[in-house]
This record gives sequence, C-alpha cells and structure tokens, in this order.
Amino acid sequence: MKDSSPCPLTPRGFSFAGIAAGIKGNDHKDLGLILTDRPAIAGGVFTRNRFPSAHVQYCRRLVPLERFRALIVNSGNANAATGQDGIEANRRMAAAVAERFGIESDQVLTASTGIIGRPFPLELIIGGLDRLAAQCTSNTTDLATAIMTTDTFPKQASTRFSIGPESYTVTGVAKGSGMIHPNMATMLAFVMTDAPIAAGDIQTLATAAADISFNCISVDGDTSTNDSFFLISTHPGTIDGSDVYTIGKAINTVAIDLARQIARDGEGAEHLIEVTVSGAADPTMARVVLNAILTSNLVKTAIHGRDPNWGRILAAVGNGLSGLTNGENFPISITIQGMPVFSAGEPVKVDSAELSHQLGQPDIDIRVDLHRGGHHLTGWGCDLSAEYVRINAEYST
Amino acid sequence: MKDSSPCPLTPRGFSFAGIAAGIKGNDHKDLGLILTDRPAIAGGVFTRNRFPSAHVQYCRRLVPLERFRALIVNSGNANAATGQDGIEANRRMAAAVAERFGIESDQVLTASTGIIGRPFPLELIIGGLDRLAAQCTSNTTDLATAIMTTDTFPKQASTRFSIGPESYTVTGVAKGSGMIHPNMATMLAFVMTDAPIAAGDIQTLATAAADISFNCISVDGDTSTNDSFFLISTHPGTIDGSDVYTIGKAINTVAIDLARQIARDGEGAEHLIEVTVSGAADPTMARVVLNAILTSNLVKTAIHGRDPNWGRILAAVGNGLSGLTNGENFPISITIQGMPVFSAGEPVKVDSAELSHQLGQPDIDIRVDLHRGGHHLTGWGCDLSAEYVRINAEYST
Repeated sequence: MKDSSPCPLTPRGFSFAGIAAGIKGNDHKDLGLILTDRPAIAGGVFTRNRFPSAHVQYCRRLVPLERFRALIVNSGNANAATGQDGIEANRRMAAAVAERFGIESDQVLTASTGIIGRPFPLELIIGGLDRLAAQCTSNTTDLATAIMTTDTFPKQASTRFSIGPESYTVTGVAKGSGMIHPNMATMLAFVMTDAPIAAGDIQTLATAAADISFNCISVDGDTSTNDSFFLISTHPGTIDGSDVYTIGKAINTVAIDLARQIARDGEGAEHLIEVTVSGAADPTMARVVLNAILTSNLVKTAIHGRDPNWGRILAAVGNGLSGLTNGENFPISITIQGMPVFSAGEPVKVDSAELSHQLGQPDIDIRVDLHRGGHHLTGWGCDLSAEYVRINAEYST
Repeated sequence: MKDSSPCPLTPRGFSFAGIAAGIKGNDHKDLGLILTDRPAIAGGVFTRNRFPSAHVQYCRRLVPLERFRALIVNSGNANAATGQDGIEANRRMAAAVAERFGIESDQVLTASTGIIGRPFPLELIIGGLDRLAAQCTSNTTDLATAIMTTDTFPKQASTRFSIGPESYTVTGVAKGSGMIHPNMATMLAFVMTDAPIAAGDIQTLATAAADISFNCISVDGDTSTNDSFFLISTHPGTIDGSDVYTIGKAINTVAIDLARQIARDGEGAEHLIEVTVSGAADPTMARVVLNAILTSNLVKTAIHGRDPNWGRILAAVGNGLSGLTNGENFPISITIQGMPVFSAGEPVKVDSAELSHQLGQPDIDIRVDLHRGGHHLTGWGCDLSAEYVRINAEYST
C-alpha cells in the first residue's frame, strides 16, 4: 500500500543528490542537494509558526528568488529554537555551498527538518559537500530519501505535458509524517519544472499550489517551525495566460500527489482519509470544517478501529463551526464510503456492519455537505494509531 | 494516583441517586438524579458545538432557572444527532420526572452523555424513576458513578466555609475523560451549594467558574455536542458584594478541583499536565497559547514517553501565536518541572537525563512566559498514550 510513486521524469537543468553525512548519528541518508545548471526562479511558502527555524527566516528574505542555483537540505537537525547561533550556522552553510559550487550565497536556499533545539552540525554538512557534488544525478530518489525523518517511504511525483510542440516536466519530492497540518507543519516539499514561468508569476503559482495541497493535509494538527514548500523553474520566461493555467494545473497535480502521499504516510497510519466539504457559505467555512474533521482525534481513532461511530464526524463539524459567526445550527448531510449516514439534519438508518466493513479499506472517503452555499474543499489526513504514540513518545531519546 | 476525592459534605436541601437502568446494556450505573426539597436557582454553561444535543437545546431555554427542583442525567445515550425524535424524547423525559415527583416540567433540567446518533431509550429511563426515588440519599457517590462513561473513577469535590456565624457547603460531581477541551467538550459537571446566591448572580457565577476551570482543560481537543455545567443553589437570596466574592471563590475551588480530576483521568492518561502561560498581552493570547500546548499531540506524546524534547512545547506556542495579529516573533521563556529549558529566546543547556527523570512524576508542570504583558492563565491536560487509541477505537463497537 505504501509504495512510492515511480518517478522516471526529470525536468531539464536540474541535478539532485542525497547522502549520509552522519547528522542523524547513523548511516541513513540525511543530506540532500538540488542544483541547477543555470539561474532559475524560485517561489516559497513557509510555516506560519511564530518561532520559525533559521532556514525559514533566511529563505523568507530571499524568495521569490530570480537567480536560484542550489538548495541544501538536511533531515537530522531542524535548526529551530537554536537562537542566534542557529541563524549564523545557517548563513555559513549557505556560504559554504556557494563556495563549493562557485556561485553566490544569495543563490542558495536552505531547508532543514529533524530535532528542535540542538546545536546545528555545520561541520558534518560542510564535510559532505564534496560527496554531494560527486553524486549529482538526474534521478530524485536519493534526494527524496535523504529528506525522510519518520517517513516510511520516499515521496516523489511527476507529470509531463505539452504546450504546442514543446513538452515540459514537473517533478516533486516531499517529506512529511507527523505534525503535518494545514499551514505547513513539519513538511518539506520541492517541486521543480522546466516549464516557462515568468518571474512575476512564480510566487503566485507556489501559493496557489500550496493552498489546495499541502495546506489541506493534517496528520496531527500541529504546525511546525520548519515547514517549507519551494517551486523552482529553470525556464524563466513570459508566456500566455492560458499556458500559465496549463502549467499551474500540472504543478497542482504534482503537489496534490505529494500531499496525498504525506497524509497516507502519517506516523503509524493505516488509512488515507480524504474529506470533501461542500456547500460552504465561503472558503473560510469550508477550510475550518475540513480542518476540524481531519484533526479530530476521535474521528481518527474511530476510523482506525473501523468504528461506524459517525456521530464523531458530526461533532467535529459542529466543533469547527463553533468558531464561525455564520455557523449557526443547520441541517447537514454526511456520507462515508458513499453511504449516507446523516441527511439534512436527521440520522439515516445505517447498516453498521457494512459500514464497519467499508472502513477496512485503505482509502476512506468522507463527504460533508453543509447546504449553505457553493464553496467546497478537499483535504487529506490519516487515522490515529497506537503506533503513532509509540513513534512520538520515543522520537528524540 | 487516580483516587476520587473524599466527599463527606452535603449542602442542605439536596438529595442524590444513581442506578443501573440498562441504558448501557450492562449492569453499570447509568442513570442519575439531583433533587431539591425546595425551589432552587440554577445557572448553566453549555458547549459551543453547533450541533448541540437535545438536552443542551432544552436546558439553554430554561436557565437561569429560578424554580429548579430536579435534574435527570444518563450516561449511555447522548441524545445528540437524533433529530426531532430526540428533542421530543428529551421533553417527554422531563415531563415523566415532573410527574413522578409532583413538580412542573419546567422545574426539571436534563443532561446526557454517551453514544451519538442512536434512538433515545426513553422507556428504560422512565422505568428507572421509581428506583431513583427510592434510593435518594445525601451522598453524591452513586450520582458521580452513574454519570461515568470511560472515566476510571467517580469525580467529586467539596468545600465548606463560613460567612459570619453561618456555615455553607459547596459540593460538585463531574464526568470527563476523552473529548474534554476548552469550551466544554464531553463533560458534565454539577456544582451544588446551600450558600445564598441572588437569582441575578447565579449565571454570572457559573460562567466565571467555567472560564477558569472546565474551559481550561483539554484531553483531546474535541468539543462535544453535550458538554454542560450546572450551578445550583437551594438558598436564593440577596447578599453583600464581599460575600458574593467569598461564595464565588468556594465555587471556583470546587470547579477547579473537578477540572483537574477530569484532566488527570483523560483516557489512557498517566500524567496530569498543568500549564501556566504568563506575560500575555491580553486574555486571548494567554488562552490561545494555553490551548495550543494542551492540545498538541506532539507535546502529549513526548510527556508520555518522558522525552525531554522541549522544542515541541516551543513549536506549539509558535503554532498558537500564528493565529494572532499581535503574535509576532518574540523571545519567550519555558520551564518544565521548574527547570529552565528556553530563556528569553535562547536555548538553555539542559540536563536531559535529569529532565527525563522529572517527567516520570505523575504531575507535570509547564510554565511559559511570553514577556509581553500582565495576563496569565493556568490550565490542565494529560499525556497521549497508546491506551487512548485503544479506548477510542473500540468505544461504540
């Protein structure tokens, strides 16, 4: 079930590497690199956590970046809650990468994930740069592996499309697992393309993609200090409006594919939960109700236990609506795996045995119609298992 | 560790009962009664969930109630998401209680907790009224037992105080466990007193007590359809302002005692976590940060695993502040069990082994100083264990 997507496609102008640099204290890959052979453009979307990591503080000042050449990423040390020392270490890491590849510091983006509050292992990273350079390849698998923390599989997705005679590729890698939540919890995602994007559009496209993918997933409701999504194109250039739409759609497809992989690989998860909220009065209502369902420990444990206790979904919706001024009591409808359980405010006679059986599927589909308007939103989460607790109780020790 | 408080004190004018009426489908107590021998006054605070149970809809219209005589409560069926049938069943239950005790329907309050979306077992409740009447006593233990769901111990608290020559008693019972969250998740609490309270003050005192007790606890972040807190006095009467303060303080003491018992008895919990947020710019900032820490699955699992990963607390604070316009990045301080781990925005060298050892205590104390103002708030939660998942994956089936 938890297979990585095959990823044979590489956009022109990119190379990738991933090695074990000893940051995790074992022989697992923990240091990755994205390199372009020409100046590229990069947009970024970052965590809203008020204590962002050193790399988030650094990259926020640089993006949108028109002269991008390299991104260095490690998965052992988050470089968050490390104070001024951490900020200085991140700066020196970017300078070392620039020096190694003969580019400028302000052409280098940085990313980090892992444990919070520990001194940043700058020497291990600098010591790994030559090996990274030697192992650069057009294949993203080593990079996707090097950014994993508690992920159980590397996450990659790609698509190819044409505009006129020209064919373009979008490829992405991501890491997630645990702490994933709307507004970009501990999640890193890099989506790369050789499709033409105007410098003025890159940030808009990045934000739009994040809004319907990474900002619609939740594993445990926490937003981290480090979440970052970068969109990079090696083909800066002005294009027609309709072509921007085609390119944006391909980017969104890859971003949603990665977001679903992240949700499916939630720590200890056995189910991917897809929730669609429709009939919302406005986009905020749709998002708040979506989040309330995806973050409810009671909904997540019920699905883990194949428990047809659909009342917990109703309670979660009511919980979400409680914060909205326009969320007064109204008749909603709920279906689970296509089976209606609540219709226009009244319970539906449910075949509990059949519903429980349906909850044994790896993919769970929940639809909530608020019957209040035309706005809808789809998002993804996972069940909550005893294994989640085990993983998170033992993470740092 | 998980003992119920001794509860020898009974306010004048009250009697209590709790029996097994078969609502849970076994021989556990599941039906309770509070009866007064004179018209009493009652205030109430209810869930903000937008799909409130039938009893919440019913009681909201009645409180503050100046002629209170009885409260009927069951712990097998929530009577939520039951549509019009549920509302009618609740009305008929109140009428049956009134008839049995020779009072009026609008002198009867109702409460319910248990499974959502199942038809209400009205006949079982009516069938239990004679036994409830026969077993009325001044002792609250049967009542406290009859309202338990996944609670592992009955929750009772009481205090006695004097105003001049006169001595008064405040006694409370509560049920919690799971779904407990600020704004009154699946939690029932009844606080009873024979102290004089003016009819115009009862609702104010109830709201004030809830704000610093039941609205400051979180077990799993969900707010339920059924949460209710009632404050009842058999002694309606006007009193001096300073005496109102004395009475309010006694009510708050009992409410906080019950709230702490509820947090300690979170499903599968091994630790009571007390969090104090100080230095907040305003009450909202204090409450939002408190909730972000108490509801973080990552903080809760870290404490369960005695993991000195204090960065998760910092991340939770930053997560909470992310929603506030005045929550910009600023240097905070954190102590755990009295040990400083983060001070004015910089990490403190921590003895991880000692901190891990301290996290083995049943009671965990976390203090966060935001250094932004004079507002503070204390609240309570619990750790997240594999046992929580087991309980909640198996609840209805």
